[in-house]
Amino acid sequence: MPLQSHMHLISTDDHLIEHPKLWSDRLPKKFLDAGPRIIEKVMPRSVHAGDGARGDAGTKLAEVWTYEGRIYPYIGLNAVAGKKPEEFGAEPTRYEDMIPGCYDPAARVLDMDIDGVQATLSFPSFPRFAGTVFLEAEDKELALLSVKAWNDYHIDEWCASAPDRLIPLVILPLWSVEECVKEIYRTAAKGAKAISFPENPSPLGLPSFHTNHWDPVFSACEDTGIPLCVHFGTSGKAPITAPEAPMAVMTALFGCNSMYATADLLFSPVFHNHPKLKFMLSEGGIGWIPYMLERMDLTWEKHRFYQNINQTVRPSELFSKHLFGCFIEDDFGIKNRHAVGIGNITWEGDYPHSDSNWPNSRKRVHDSMLHVPDDEVHQMVELNARALLNFPRT
Amino acid sequence: MPLQSHMHLISTDDHLIEHPKLWSDRLPKKFLDAGPRIIEKVMPRSVHAGDGARGDAGTKLAEVWTYEGRIYPYIGLNAVAGKKPEEFGAEPTRYEDMIPGCYDPAARVLDMDIDGVQATLSFPSFPRFAGTVFLEAEDKELALLSVKAWNDYHIDEWCASAPDRLIPLVILPLWSVEECVKEIYRTAAKGAKAISFPENPSPLGLPSFHTNHWDPVFSACEDTGIPLCVHFGTSGKAPITAPEAPMAVMTALFGCNSMYATADLLFSPVFHNHPKLKFMLSEGGIGWIPYMLERMDLTWEKHRFYQNINQTVRPSELFSKHLFGCFIEDDFGIKNRHAVGIGNITWEGDYPHSDSNWPNSRKRVHDSMLHVPDDEVHQMVELNARALLNFPRT
Repeated sequence: MPLQSHMHLISTDDHLIEHPKLWSDRLPKKFLDAGPRIIEKVMPRSVHAGDGARGDAGTKLAEVWTYEGRIYPYIGLNAVAGKKPEEFGAEPTRYEDMIPGCYDPAARVLDMDIDGVQATLSFPSFPRFAGTVFLEAEDKELALLSVKAWNDYHIDEWCASAPDRLIPLVILPLWSVEECVKEIYRTAAKGAKAISFPENPSPLGLPSFHTNHWDPVFSACEDTGIPLCVHFGTSGKAPITAPEAPMAVMTALFGCNSMYATADLLFSPVFHNHPKLKFMLSEGGIGWIPYMLERMDLTWEKHRFYQNINQTVRPSELFSKHLFGCFIEDDFGIKNRHAVGIGNITWEGDYPHSDSNWPNSRKRVHDSMLHVPDDEVHQMVELNARALLNFPRT
Repeated sequence: MPLQSHMHLISTDDHLIEHPKLWSDRLPKKFLDAGPRIIEKVMPRSVHAGDGARGDAGTKLAEVWTYEGRIYPYIGLNAVAGKKPEEFGAEPTRYEDMIPGCYDPAARVLDMDIDGVQATLSFPSFPRFAGTVFLEAEDKELALLSVKAWNDYHIDEWCASAPDRLIPLVILPLWSVEECVKEIYRTAAKGAKAISFPENPSPLGLPSFHTNHWDPVFSACEDTGIPLCVHFGTSGKAPITAPEAPMAVMTALFGCNSMYATADLLFSPVFHNHPKLKFMLSEGGIGWIPYMLERMDLTWEKHRFYQNINQTVRPSELFSKHLFGCFIEDDFGIKNRHAVGIGNITWEGDYPHSDSNWPNSRKRVHDSMLHVPDDEVHQMVELNARALLNFPRT
């Protein structure tokens, strides 16, 4: 029984659905109309691209976010926890379509109890996982207040309701390095343990990891000891092969985004300039990591001489010091855990998305660890995450 | 000694550089000016994107291809065989910059002897690996004749000079399914053993694998028993993360293109409609395959019910029947060869590109196989390729 009862499951990637009044509870009166709020709107029922079979599903009076007049159709991407796969298909379009654990922290903790999960790090939904919705803002004063409102909600309301169970993660005002730095220190002072950051800023129109643009942000992360979580998809680029491809192609390929982030970071100056910085590859899986490390090292061995890349440190060595993989279920990765690095692996639940095994997460982890020594199980499911997130047992 | 002397190395992916008169020897007189030919042109010496350090390298009188008035700057992408990594950097810009094995089949066979390679499948260079240069043609009559000229050259001149060493591969006139089918039968009759095809036609402006557009092509492949080789990069999409990213990022990530092709094909109707069809993932590597098969199967288990994908056959089952991985060096993949499928692995040399280990390929393969049983070595380095390419020992 390798997953023993004293071993806590710490999930490094779950998701929360913002409750309807998150922003209207916090924004100044003059911004209540333009700021994010929920309205009712008639929307098509069918939501899955590439799924012609559902095209005639009609319409529904949905609850949607509106922000500066723009409509954001889905309140909770893939909030299907508790449904059978046979019932998957449409995104929930009303809060009543979801189980309360999606948006109510007390209900979430009860759902974690059922699932055997001790603590969780939850990403935003409407603002997108790295808060990139606020990059689209016309009014940057409102956008900055909206970022702060999400962070205040997450720390003061969501996590404060169960401080040993819910781990504070924050987003940044990505359009301003100066404001990013201020927000890191402001939220660190009140308990932030992780920052959600784009897996690649370049496709968002922001400077890439190969510039010195982000250095003040990364220095603030080193200074406060806070890791950056780069969730797959946060670059805004999805692995879509063709207009007609079924969504399964994209779903299966999303880990490639984390491969892109890994190569992008390990051939950049980031870790050479920031030796204490840590990144988590949220939802990226782990089974591909040994292949990619071998491939990057071979590339470095043969091709470093004529390129502006570090000439002395191998990418795999950088990986082991700076990057952390996150798996939901990845039996091939577990089998090859030593090639990934036992210290570089964390577990995640992905509640309430469709890749989650809720309410059977603990059983699924147990089954995948049957042949793993106890101490290695403990590192991967709990200890690595506690150390990285500076979230000790209380 | 697992790689024994009676085991032949069959390379499923090398490259040839077209000699200057390939087309002018074969095209009708009226097309000699517009058809592909070599001219001299002053070109910048520095050729590597993202490598600022070489920006002041000056100019050089280069040999370049011209075709319908367009200039194609490099006669041989990365034809660096025999150079030390410290000497890599610039593409060769004159035939005299390359070793003759790049463009002379007799010299190639001698280089294969040095390298311990028995037989090889060579892809085009100027037409791009899947002949997609001819999609850009204004005059499709000339383009069709140019495709046929490359195929005739490859079969009648290149391979005919050493028929037990050089394996005929052909390209197709991709803009016309009808002409593709004709060209498959025409070249099969004179010995074609493989077809180079885009890893994904969609980014090239062609219908995707999720349409029925290619069915006559795939039926002709089944009928003639010829596999399709989808070399990474042939979709025209490169894994570039940012404008400033060093080329190493792209080099390390190119295997992701083969992951895209794998998921795209396995969630398409292609193999359900063409049960005898085979694809080779040229240069794609193999170490990622078990991770991706597990990920695709999980996606299929949870997400098939609401999507237009096959409901009864798991992606991993399709993979084992239809897809073949090709590795240059991939020790993690070799270690996990049973999870890939021993019958789904072939070796490749990649001569004369920079990932090649020439003239030490046989030694490198030997070293990577030290702990592999003899019969499995034999399958991976020779027998799988001979069966797939219908290229028995003579």
